[in-house]
Amino acid sequence: MLALVTEHQIVRPTPISGFPEWLPEVRRVELRWLDTIRAAFERYGFCSVETPSVESLDVLASKGETSQEVYTLRRLQADADDHSDARLGLHFDLTVPFARYVAAHFNDLVFPFKRYQIQRVWRGERPQEGRFREFTQCDIDVINVDSVPAHFDAELPRVVHEIFTELALPARTIRINNRKVLQGFYEGHGIGDPLGVIRVADKIDKIGSDGVARTLSDELGLSADQVTACIALAAVRGSDASVVEEVTRLGAKSDLLSEGLDELSFVLTELGDLPPGAVVADLSIARGLDYYTGTVYETTFDGFPGFGSICSGGRYDDLAGSFIRRNLPGVGISIGLTRIFAKLVAEGLIESAGSAPSDVLVVIPSDARRSEALATARLLRTRGFNVETYHQADKLAKQVRYASRKAIPYVWFPPFDDGRPHEVKSMAGGDQVSADPATWRP
Amino acid sequence: MLALVTEHQIVRPTPISGFPEWLPEVRRVELRWLDTIRAAFERYGFCSVETPSVESLDVLASKGETSQEVYTLRRLQADADDHSDARLGLHFDLTVPFARYVAAHFNDLVFPFKRYQIQRVWRGERPQEGRFREFTQCDIDVINVDSVPAHFDAELPRVVHEIFTELALPARTIRINNRKVLQGFYEGHGIGDPLGVIRVADKIDKIGSDGVARTLSDELGLSADQVTACIALAAVRGSDASVVEEVTRLGAKSDLLSEGLDELSFVLTELGDLPPGAVVADLSIARGLDYYTGTVYETTFDGFPGFGSICSGGRYDDLAGSFIRRNLPGVGISIGLTRIFAKLVAEGLIESAGSAPSDVLVVIPSDARRSEALATARLLRTRGFNVETYHQADKLAKQVRYASRKAIPYVWFPPFDDGRPHEVKSMAGGDQVSADPATWRP
Repeated sequence: MLALVTEHQIVRPTPISGFPEWLPEVRRVELRWLDTIRAAFERYGFCSVETPSVESLDVLASKGETSQEVYTLRRLQADADDHSDARLGLHFDLTVPFARYVAAHFNDLVFPFKRYQIQRVWRGERPQEGRFREFTQCDIDVINVDSVPAHFDAELPRVVHEIFTELALPARTIRINNRKVLQGFYEGHGIGDPLGVIRVADKIDKIGSDGVARTLSDELGLSADQVTACIALAAVRGSDASVVEEVTRLGAKSDLLSEGLDELSFVLTELGDLPPGAVVADLSIARGLDYYTGTVYETTFDGFPGFGSICSGGRYDDLAGSFIRRNLPGVGISIGLTRIFAKLVAEGLIESAGSAPSDVLVVIPSDARRSEALATARLLRTRGFNVETYHQADKLAKQVRYASRKAIPYVWFPPFDDGRPHEVKSMAGGDQVSADPATWRP
Repeated sequence: MLALVTEHQIVRPTPISGFPEWLPEVRRVELRWLDTIRAAFERYGFCSVETPSVESLDVLASKGETSQEVYTLRRLQADADDHSDARLGLHFDLTVPFARYVAAHFNDLVFPFKRYQIQRVWRGERPQEGRFREFTQCDIDVINVDSVPAHFDAELPRVVHEIFTELALPARTIRINNRKVLQGFYEGHGIGDPLGVIRVADKIDKIGSDGVARTLSDELGLSADQVTACIALAAVRGSDASVVEEVTRLGAKSDLLSEGLDELSFVLTELGDLPPGAVVADLSIARGLDYYTGTVYETTFDGFPGFGSICSGGRYDDLAGSFIRRNLPGVGISIGLTRIFAKLVAEGLIESAGSAPSDVLVVIPSDARRSEALATARLLRTRGFNVETYHQADKLAKQVRYASRKAIPYVWFPPFDDGRPHEVKSMAGGDQVSADPATWRP
């Protein structure tokens, strides 16, 4: 015959480190997660966008971030002179491609533009727990011309809360802050480099309050009073407008601070119907990225304190500014699907219901009854069931064992002889009863 | 404020040639297509598998094909000495990664293993009509230890036929042949290089019967009788077992030919209930790839003759042989989703129902009624509707216009004053009636 592989040199089939893949029964759960996430996004009217995985390096570098992690592409057999692909790379997030997309299709979109985007992204990082080189993110953003209503700052964490509840994630907290509060507070305390303080304060999880205090004093030259105020601000927590009073009690005053507190208070009030602790104002979070300008989000598992954020985002002023001469502010949040899912798989917290989507296996009683079995399966499929037909008239025990190994819940027996009824066996209950394929319900 | 882009150097936002992206209303149709395809795959019990986009070049080269089109990866800032990523590339099909996957997880899979895989693949080709550098394929394969029952050779085109019917694709024909018939026929006519003849015969679409005849005679040295027999075989068509008689009448005899004709006849008989012309035996198709060993599939649009195949595949003997010392034959078929979809977009044959998934827009009558409006939207969402709340208490006309521009079919008016009922307006019909959010149905 037409053999392909004549020489049996064996290539290692294990996947590459940092590029996760799942067994079918685990993938089935991931698929259910993706369905749940997409349904929630659509329930709030977000529309689907997909962008190419590949962008020009000019586009990828437009935000000025993480470019050292970008994977660039080159054709294997490219001529030495052929530089046509030399400027392409895989996207490392979905925000930059989305900004480019909005600029490219500006005249064809309805604003405020609410989009969701569920795609793989790539980063050439060293793989470690929770860090992958290829992973799936689930983003929602609202982008608008000139200004984005505060409504959306509250809507995004609500959607995420619904999703995490439906997925039955282990205990976690969505934390909210507002960069205007931080910047306005620092300015109100006469600190000359508020952005510098934000960057230091953002490390409080890693270096602790003492570490932050020392750095603020030693490296940024803050006075003891200023340091005390900054540390006191970072300790403020709360799930209602009382955080505003607490911050106000810390003494700073500035227009920016008032504006930020109004926004933070609006978001907390809008989310007042959520269960206590679901969304919490946490004045210590800052998000390192420079482009956030208002609300910021960060979500952590309560039970895995060192694991870092599983869902982050915030408000930005003008992310598409490198592509179009329009002011297009936005607010967005991103669920780190692979990060979360892989962690729960590793913790043994993912329960699977088998690998196959099949509801029913139809057995083939004999070669003579084959076409009747196939017709039965077709009828059940038109009625909305997922149905496998066993592939040949093997011994019955073997056919039933196949259903059992694939955790298919029902086995259908078409008549073995004329005049006998169809029967269906519940694999869980073990009972076998006669049934009509035109009317049967599990 | 914390501006990101200080210098406004504009980067061209248009996507790169060969990397398609769609407007939201077109993407929405693509998403419906993907849902339809996945549902059909699951209806037949195929389970979902996803593999990383990235494989080692050793894996990608294991089939010995198309490697010059592979995109290799390199980190932008990789050290000159750092060759850790030097051997990675993007997959160019889903068959090679699937073979690696089966080998890697052999002990954890249930055989016959039926999987579907819907993913993007990349090829560094010159972009042209129907050829993209990034595109989505939808594959199903059945792989088994030692042998794959002929049942599956018939099941795959049936699934594809159902999908294409549900998608209401323009007229198309799924063509079937069997490589054993070709090889056995050529051998039976005393032709020494049957594989060479298959490769030439595969070009009949491009160079015509005369071209094939000339090449067989001039380049492969076939006798006039042999050429006549080959051309006669390629002209055989039919949708039932009568093709077997036709081939038999052409005089060749060999065990391989009989085996191939039995298989072809089995598949055609199994598909006998499909509408006439849906699946046709076409003895001229061969599929160029050397690894096919039995049934082969090829599908073309009747109305776009030069466009090439939109869904192809076939049976192979041992695709995982480079990864594992097991005999794992399989049969598979692949729908070229992006190829098909982009063609129908270009032909103006894709009809969209608007960009937003929303069923209802709830307006905000006034700031005082804001929380009531939000609560109404939440109630409608728990009842399964996709609901947007307008973001602020703008003039009503502006809020309704937003629904109209996004083609949201219903606009919901919560009470403007105490004691008034809720009302809902059908944007298509124009009628506005009172309604209860707890019981309303469109």
